[in-house]
Amino acid sequence: MGENNFIYEVSDFSLENDELMLNETLFHNANGYLGVRSNFEEGYPIDFQSIRGEYINGFYDFVEMKQAENLCGLTEEKQTMLNVADTQGIRLSLDDEEFSMFTGTVLQSSRTLDMEKGITLRRVVWRSPKGKEVEITIIRMASFVLLPLFTIEYRVKALNFSGTLHFHSTHIGSVLNYCDPSDPRVANETFQHLLAGKAEFVDNASVISSHTSKSALHVTSAVKNLLSKPAKEERIKRDSTAIQKFTVETEADETVTLTKYTVLCDSIRYSDCRAAALEHLEKAVSSPLADWYSLQEQYLRKYWESCAVHVKGDDELSNAITYNLYQLIQSVGKDPHSNIAAKGLSGEGYEGHYFWDTEMYIQPYFLLTQPQIAKNLIEYRYTTLDAARENAQILGHKSGALFPWRTIMGKECSGYFPSGSAQYHINGDIAYSVINYFLLTKDIEFIARCGAEIVFETARLWMDVGNISGGKFLINSVTGPDEYTCLVNNNYFTNVLAQHNLNWAVKFYRLLEEKKLLTPVKEKIGLTKSEITDFRRAAEIMYLPYEEEMDINPQDDSFLSKKLWDLKKTPQKDFPLLLHYHPLYLYRHQVCKQADTVPAHFVLEDAQPLSTMKHSFNYYERVTTHDSSLSTCIFSIMASRLGMPEKAYDYFGKSSELDLFNTHKNTKDGIHTANMGGTYMAIVYGFGGLRIKEDGLHLAPALPEQWTEYDFKIHDEDSLIQVLVKKQSCEITLLNGTEKTVFLYGRSYLLKDRLQLPLEDWGKS
Amino acid sequence: MGENNFIYEVSDFSLENDELMLNETLFHNANGYLGVRSNFEEGYPIDFQSIRGEYINGFYDFVEMKQAENLCGLTEEKQTMLNVADTQGIRLSLDDEEFSMFTGTVLQSSRTLDMEKGITLRRVVWRSPKGKEVEITIIRMASFVLLPLFTIEYRVKALNFSGTLHFHSTHIGSVLNYCDPSDPRVANETFQHLLAGKAEFVDNASVISSHTSKSALHVTSAVKNLLSKPAKEERIKRDSTAIQKFTVETEADETVTLTKYTVLCDSIRYSDCRAAALEHLEKAVSSPLADWYSLQEQYLRKYWESCAVHVKGDDELSNAITYNLYQLIQSVGKDPHSNIAAKGLSGEGYEGHYFWDTEMYIQPYFLLTQPQIAKNLIEYRYTTLDAARENAQILGHKSGALFPWRTIMGKECSGYFPSGSAQYHINGDIAYSVINYFLLTKDIEFIARCGAEIVFETARLWMDVGNISGGKFLINSVTGPDEYTCLVNNNYFTNVLAQHNLNWAVKFYRLLEEKKLLTPVKEKIGLTKSEITDFRRAAEIMYLPYEEEMDINPQDDSFLSKKLWDLKKTPQKDFPLLLHYHPLYLYRHQVCKQADTVPAHFVLEDAQPLSTMKHSFNYYERVTTHDSSLSTCIFSIMASRLGMPEKAYDYFGKSSELDLFNTHKNTKDGIHTANMGGTYMAIVYGFGGLRIKEDGLHLAPALPEQWTEYDFKIHDEDSLIQVLVKKQSCEITLLNGTEKTVFLYGRSYLLKDRLQLPLEDWGKS
Repeated sequence: MGENNFIYEVSDFSLENDELMLNETLFHNANGYLGVRSNFEEGYPIDFQSIRGEYINGFYDFVEMKQAENLCGLTEEKQTMLNVADTQGIRLSLDDEEFSMFTGTVLQSSRTLDMEKGITLRRVVWRSPKGKEVEITIIRMASFVLLPLFTIEYRVKALNFSGTLHFHSTHIGSVLNYCDPSDPRVANETFQHLLAGKAEFVDNASVISSHTSKSALHVTSAVKNLLSKPAKEERIKRDSTAIQKFTVETEADETVTLTKYTVLCDSIRYSDCRAAALEHLEKAVSSPLADWYSLQEQYLRKYWESCAVHVKGDDELSNAITYNLYQLIQSVGKDPHSNIAAKGLSGEGYEGHYFWDTEMYIQPYFLLTQPQIAKNLIEYRYTTLDAARENAQILGHKSGALFPWRTIMGKECSGYFPSGSAQYHINGDIAYSVINYFLLTKDIEFIARCGAEIVFETARLWMDVGNISGGKFLINSVTGPDEYTCLVNNNYFTNVLAQHNLNWAVKFYRLLEEKKLLTPVKEKIGLTKSEITDFRRAAEIMYLPYEEEMDINPQDDSFLSKKLWDLKKTPQKDFPLLLHYHPLYLYRHQVCKQADTVPAHFVLEDAQPLSTMKHSFNYYERVTTHDSSLSTCIFSIMASRLGMPEKAYDYFGKSSELDLFNTHKNTKDGIHTANMGGTYMAIVYGFGGLRIKEDGLHLAPALPEQWTEYDFKIHDEDSLIQVLVKKQSCEITLLNGTEKTVFLYGRSYLLKDRLQLPLEDWGKS
Repeated sequence: MGENNFIYEVSDFSLENDELMLNETLFHNANGYLGVRSNFEEGYPIDFQSIRGEYINGFYDFVEMKQAENLCGLTEEKQTMLNVADTQGIRLSLDDEEFSMFTGTVLQSSRTLDMEKGITLRRVVWRSPKGKEVEITIIRMASFVLLPLFTIEYRVKALNFSGTLHFHSTHIGSVLNYCDPSDPRVANETFQHLLAGKAEFVDNASVISSHTSKSALHVTSAVKNLLSKPAKEERIKRDSTAIQKFTVETEADETVTLTKYTVLCDSIRYSDCRAAALEHLEKAVSSPLADWYSLQEQYLRKYWESCAVHVKGDDELSNAITYNLYQLIQSVGKDPHSNIAAKGLSGEGYEGHYFWDTEMYIQPYFLLTQPQIAKNLIEYRYTTLDAARENAQILGHKSGALFPWRTIMGKECSGYFPSGSAQYHINGDIAYSVINYFLLTKDIEFIARCGAEIVFETARLWMDVGNISGGKFLINSVTGPDEYTCLVNNNYFTNVLAQHNLNWAVKFYRLLEEKKLLTPVKEKIGLTKSEITDFRRAAEIMYLPYEEEMDINPQDDSFLSKKLWDLKKTPQKDFPLLLHYHPLYLYRHQVCKQADTVPAHFVLEDAQPLSTMKHSFNYYERVTTHDSSLSTCIFSIMASRLGMPEKAYDYFGKSSELDLFNTHKNTKDGIHTANMGGTYMAIVYGFGGLRIKEDGLHLAPALPEQWTEYDFKIHDEDSLIQVLVKKQSCEITLLNGTEKTVFLYGRSYLLKDRLQLPLEDWGKS
């Protein structure tokens, strides 16, 4: 791992409410299954806002979503990720004085995220109003090894006194989700989604089993508190709350530690979640905490080995990259019941929903570094394929599947369809990720079992959506990625992805036929040869908007004829525009929330000559606000591709620091996982020039002038390849596996051991 | 009035629930200020549905309208027309047997609407379970002369017995609106909008004053019951309910009559509505009811004289026309606080909202027949001009006014903006109605006071909405009249109306300047000469979509490239399509809910050659479902214009019978006032070929072959003109006023006294 800095720390941190809420996100603990926001165990003063939450990936309730006018087929029920319990609570008193950072004097404080160890740490030296000084060190971990486990190690060292310590550890079953009626990006009303049962004590552990109000799901939280020395204990049960109190004498300089184990098990994964919770809790406490720490570190060592990107020359950015990659492994689901939410498990923004972010911003990272996780993300989509078929019917289609724009369990959750359900490109995005998975892994069995069915059903949908007019296959009345331009005809991004989807439906058909793997899927979905002929024909005559004079691909049929938005004249307070302008006003202008045609040129670059991509980039750059967190990373990649290294570096910087610097001002609601994947992509696909194509891996490395060198590792089928980029040259090394053909700056090489080549000005060609 | 049949009657009418609810609408009483549905005084059995209501035009409460996703500027509060009281209740007992049409035996029954007298009548001969026979005759009237007055004359004649009659007359203040969660066209939830005060008795009248929950409006209902002979009386007050009971002895063959006067006064019109109600009630009872009947008949005599259309040859259609014209005078507001609702005052469909229906379907009728009412409809819009300015700001515009798509008091009420607020053409429609009002009345003072300000402010809005591209003025991202095609660019209807609006802003500017009337309005709104130059330029270069090969005007830029909907293959059960297909699916197809380009050719026929209008008509006819009630009348007019008399007659028939035959299956929720205006238009603008143009009135009469003749009268400035169309010839007679230039089949004539000309095949030219 070399020079990477795995520590993210703030010292003498602010107790401003906004800052606290931001840090609740930035220091959260998660493992892809559960996530716990970094709330103070003891809470804040009563007048402070806090998003206090513990979440399970994919655990939801249904919520009614009333439409202002009832139109046929509009979504009237969504899913929302639930806050499942509050097991964070620990209150400490020194004799009769209760610890709070808002009373007495904070002499020292720091919060640390250690990404090598997989823990967070809060350290406080505090002087009580009466003058007692104490050092408190709190270590938290969401275990990557035992997914239902979250631990708090709460160490108290009396510095200048001996006396009585009182620990008051709470376990609360009845919790609510956060709401903010003024922000469309978080839930706007709260409701008792979780009906908590009575707290019980089982072998010294408190256990609370709850069920959801509408989705008929169950969850059990089990908590065990262990004190490092004998103490007077008291247990209290009050409805769905359990409290354990410890009263213990301490000497000056002695450290007393309370270890609090939380286990969360849900009925999605466990048929008897109460039994499973007790079993996992038993397993957790049967080993010393140090062992779990050690396993955590081992897990992360492997992770960093497989994915690590090393950058020399810009420490700040380098740290931001490490932070982002850590958040991705914290956020991503490890089983087919879950995916990766827009905010991971760090907060309630976008209500725990999964979007196209997965396929276009996160999958490209895991595919290269952890193909197993990339595969699981597709497995998740496959489990929701029947729901996607139903969704297609709701939207009026006779056949095929249409994946929902936002969802947890597979049903559509977007309440405003013009920038939700209408984003049909999600079908192309999912197909694209299946195709890329296949291209890199050659895992034809997986294609036969899951992937092809997805690609066939999404291809069928395009056939029902589109129509032939003037000899061209058109796709009308859909919305592309850019949410400031809705319900358009022939969105370039959509059409070119649909073409790719259709082409690969044909290719998979042939491939599976060759391998004698076609029959099961063919029969299952009643696919006919003539459909394949239609797919091929539609792909051939797919209409891709092109404007000759400017040599650009218009975003859609009418984009260029709209009024140009003058971004330079728009006051800063008006951003993001979506919070200040009626959607109709935005739709009427040439103004983009995010990259739209530009990412199409990234993902399918061979569809257009370089000049068209360059002119398009220049054109769209002028009208894009980057109000979406999905935008700057793509602009960075394409700036690299088009020979604009400074621009690439600038966009990359904006992308990589989005959460750490809270540049979108909503990190309190959670991290932006897609942007974090995008940061990686800006390096590997951007500076590294990596593309996954049918003929093999393509690379076209460039070195940002701010850097002295960088390297990354990628998986390609059975091989692990390292790419090291230095001033003037790059080295491609086959770390293990069989030899591979790789393309460098468009020329093919057989990679047997190591290739060393001078850097080229690829984008300028 | 000649042969017109002013009686609409059903005998031995059905007691099926659906039929009863339909008749609640068809036999309602209204006068443009108040409306009372034709509920049975005694009610229906408990398990029957009923929409029991009394309404005041323009009296509303605010209702929260939650959006599924909060986006900037979306409407989150609407207005809804309130049910204000229930003063219909009269229960009758013959000794100990209570009258109900659902017990005993109905020996005879009839319901009658007498449109000459302005009353409705229910007549029942009933035999009680014990054999008492009684004739009950109930006459109801909403007075056109004393607008707050509604009367029920309840006559009881004992046929075969003498005994005791008990009358039980109720006055209920606490009432709800009807709701149906399954139908987007009526309110989907109910709420206690009206907070009724305690009932009181003042001089033998019951009085209830209520106020609204949110809009801070007040209403008082006052009721007086007078019995035709001395009786034992009892008065009961219970919260917001007042009951008056009469016990009286009757002989066989004697008629006992209870007369119930209701007065409704609201705080919109009266500063002290309780005092006003008592005053009006006093006035009402101070004259015999017969006098009010007589005044009612006088009022209607004048009405029928001014508007009557006489048709010979098709009695059924002729009766339907009379019915429709009667409903229009019942529905239209007579003061600037009110307009004409989509359902008039006959029911709660569309919640009492005013739409573009006013300007495009109803104003053209009143303008020719009752210019004073046409003027009032514009006055109403003028009172809401400030709200329209605010609405423009909400939609992002820096200047100008945008009238709301649906409203009562001027604020937008559409919850789903793509087929609501996005229908910017309402601005052009309102301007068009101002222009036509001026062309026909030459009332320049009114233009200086109100009309020009509307036309200038709407013109300003087009300047902010549109943009110049490729040398053309474009209007992007709006919705035309057709609600199956939303958020499009350059909707032909919108653009051609905007052009007209802009042109007339220039013309009014010059006219007012000439007449020295410009300064006040110019200064009030800060209008500049350079704006006028811009208006003219924009109108000159207005882009009007045209497809050369087919010689048609495309509905919008992309309509023709969409998938053709196969209406012939669509099962009947799928209509109206909006209840069975997701809007996105509809938007993706060439399918129209209603006429869109076709009405543009009607209202501004000189914008295109006849061939283009003909080809367009043929094209759109194939893709129009007429799921809207605003459609067939326009197709009829244009079929007349284009020389397709049979088609014109067929569409005319569909339009004229819509409510009487309940062809849209929702007349229970109220009549379709726009369609009723459209029926008139199909005759006068359709068969009569009338157009109001800058150079004068144009006529091009044709006679449907089913008719032997027809005639109608129209006002033109200071003149009243009669048009009589017979086989082979037409006669234009100046009934009074000064001579006028009129155009017949495109040729100008000076109408001094009478013109007689042979009919021509105008449309085929």
